[in-house]
Amino acid sequence: MGAQGLTSPDLNSDDALNALRAAIGANLSAAVDLPPPVPMSLRSAVSYALLGPSKRVRPVIVHLIAVGLSKIDPVAIQVGAAVEMVHTASLILDDLPCMDDAATRRQRPTTHRVYGEATAILASIALLNRAFGVLAALDIPDPSIRLRLIEILENSVGWHGLVAGQELDILGNVDGDRASAEHLNWLKTGVLFCAAAEMGGILRGLEADKLAHVRDFARELGLAFQMADDIIDRTATQQDAGKDVGKDAGKSNVVNLLGLEASKQACAEHLGRADNSLVLSGIDPAPVRALINRHFNPSITA
Amino acid sequence: MGAQGLTSPDLNSDDALNALRAAIGANLSAAVDLPPPVPMSLRSAVSYALLGPSKRVRPVIVHLIAVGLSKIDPVAIQVGAAVEMVHTASLILDDLPCMDDAATRRQRPTTHRVYGEATAILASIALLNRAFGVLAALDIPDPSIRLRLIEILENSVGWHGLVAGQELDILGNVDGDRASAEHLNWLKTGVLFCAAAEMGGILRGLEADKLAHVRDFARELGLAFQMADDIIDRTATQQDAGKDVGKDAGKSNVVNLLGLEASKQACAEHLGRADNSLVLSGIDPAPVRALINRHFNPSITA
Repeated sequence: MGAQGLTSPDLNSDDALNALRAAIGANLSAAVDLPPPVPMSLRSAVSYALLGPSKRVRPVIVHLIAVGLSKIDPVAIQVGAAVEMVHTASLILDDLPCMDDAATRRQRPTTHRVYGEATAILASIALLNRAFGVLAALDIPDPSIRLRLIEILENSVGWHGLVAGQELDILGNVDGDRASAEHLNWLKTGVLFCAAAEMGGILRGLEADKLAHVRDFARELGLAFQMADDIIDRTATQQDAGKDVGKDAGKSNVVNLLGLEASKQACAEHLGRADNSLVLSGIDPAPVRALINRHFNPSITA
Repeated sequence: MGAQGLTSPDLNSDDALNALRAAIGANLSAAVDLPPPVPMSLRSAVSYALLGPSKRVRPVIVHLIAVGLSKIDPVAIQVGAAVEMVHTASLILDDLPCMDDAATRRQRPTTHRVYGEATAILASIALLNRAFGVLAALDIPDPSIRLRLIEILENSVGWHGLVAGQELDILGNVDGDRASAEHLNWLKTGVLFCAAAEMGGILRGLEADKLAHVRDFARELGLAFQMADDIIDRTATQQDAGKDVGKDAGKSNVVNLLGLEASKQACAEHLGRADNSLVLSGIDPAPVRALINRHFNPSITA
């Protein structure tokens, strides 16, 4: 895997990561603690979807790239919240009967199974929409930076990003080759990882060349995450995964095309390239390595 | 009805309104003329939904409030496009089987009937998302104005606006009274009219007191539009309406609660109050009156 952090987990980083995750969770809870007249069913569905058990990987990445683990930064937390709202919105839709028809997500019944399809769709729209409101209202004096963050998020969601990825996933990998499968992984996971890391880099004030390395880092990490997800889909129990598994049987995803062992190898290679780009960006790699170490079960990358 | 324009339609305004509508249509066509690698099915669904026959009332309002009819203003056209994308996104969702289950919209089969539910939902997300991208990239030198427009649009869409309105519509008017029915009309139609007009007012550089009159104008106009829509639902043929009719039978909407004649009277009252507020805003009322004159069939407001 190549990242030193993997063999000697940093317990201080672990504590700090827990504290960061708690701060992210508290911020998200406050963001959807909606008073009337917001309809009760809508408020409940939004909270249910957003506040389910989650590692909050994307908001953690925003914060690690923006400021690391030495302190909790309110603006980085807010930007992370916007990304998590978009991610949650995409999960709600992916799980719908007309898409993956999933019963379980974040270790609980999917949002539409609890609140019905219509309310689930509206909760998804509300979260996507609110993400832009959060970015527009950030406590950053220079409005052009807020606009830049909005444009990055918008670009990652739309017909060049998540939406295109989900559409291609519905159509199926018609070419059935690895390049198409990896392009799908990029659209479904990489683009939002990339947006999260780039927004973090902008908060840190990185110049264009360093930002490019940050994007490279996030692209490789996102591909590794999607690959690990597909490995889990094939190997884990539903209880371990916290969501439906075996949904990809017969799909031409990377794991099914390469086989399990080669996929684990490819996943480790993605993580290695992510680490190289991270080092080139000049950002302290230790906290990110701690995150990766915690997320990637040795059974996946070994 | 009280607005002088209604009894003596201004033919010059009619020509200018047609030219404005054509400019709006051309801008929307260009906005969704998407090259590969955007998936073909997604591109087709987005274009189909956005470019169907429509009076483009919301973009016309943006432009009339921002600059009137004396010229075509590219920035006002772009802001109108963002509003129309949001409106179209909401129509796609409202028509889904899990919501109103409508077969016809804009004189054609609904988007999900042609492209399937999943692609229709993704087209809706893509349009909502793109609306924010359009506003962020406007050719307005002051970035804080672009942010202000984004915040107005976001507020009109989310859990205080369209999304809340659609959720309440699904739940049904449980109180069954006129106040609840009018609140629903406000959320389903008024808020986006209000956002369109307020954005136009900001482009015109109006001060807060004049903006408040513009919002009052748009709120009343939106209520009149929704009421006319409900009257059409009850009285028109599907061919005349260009969409499903009779969907609201048994619903506690304002028209069913008041009866047809009292509804026509109430609609005319809303239009009268809209006109008063428009005059107070200081904006030349003639072009807006021409728009209203064209839209409101005498059988509705007489």
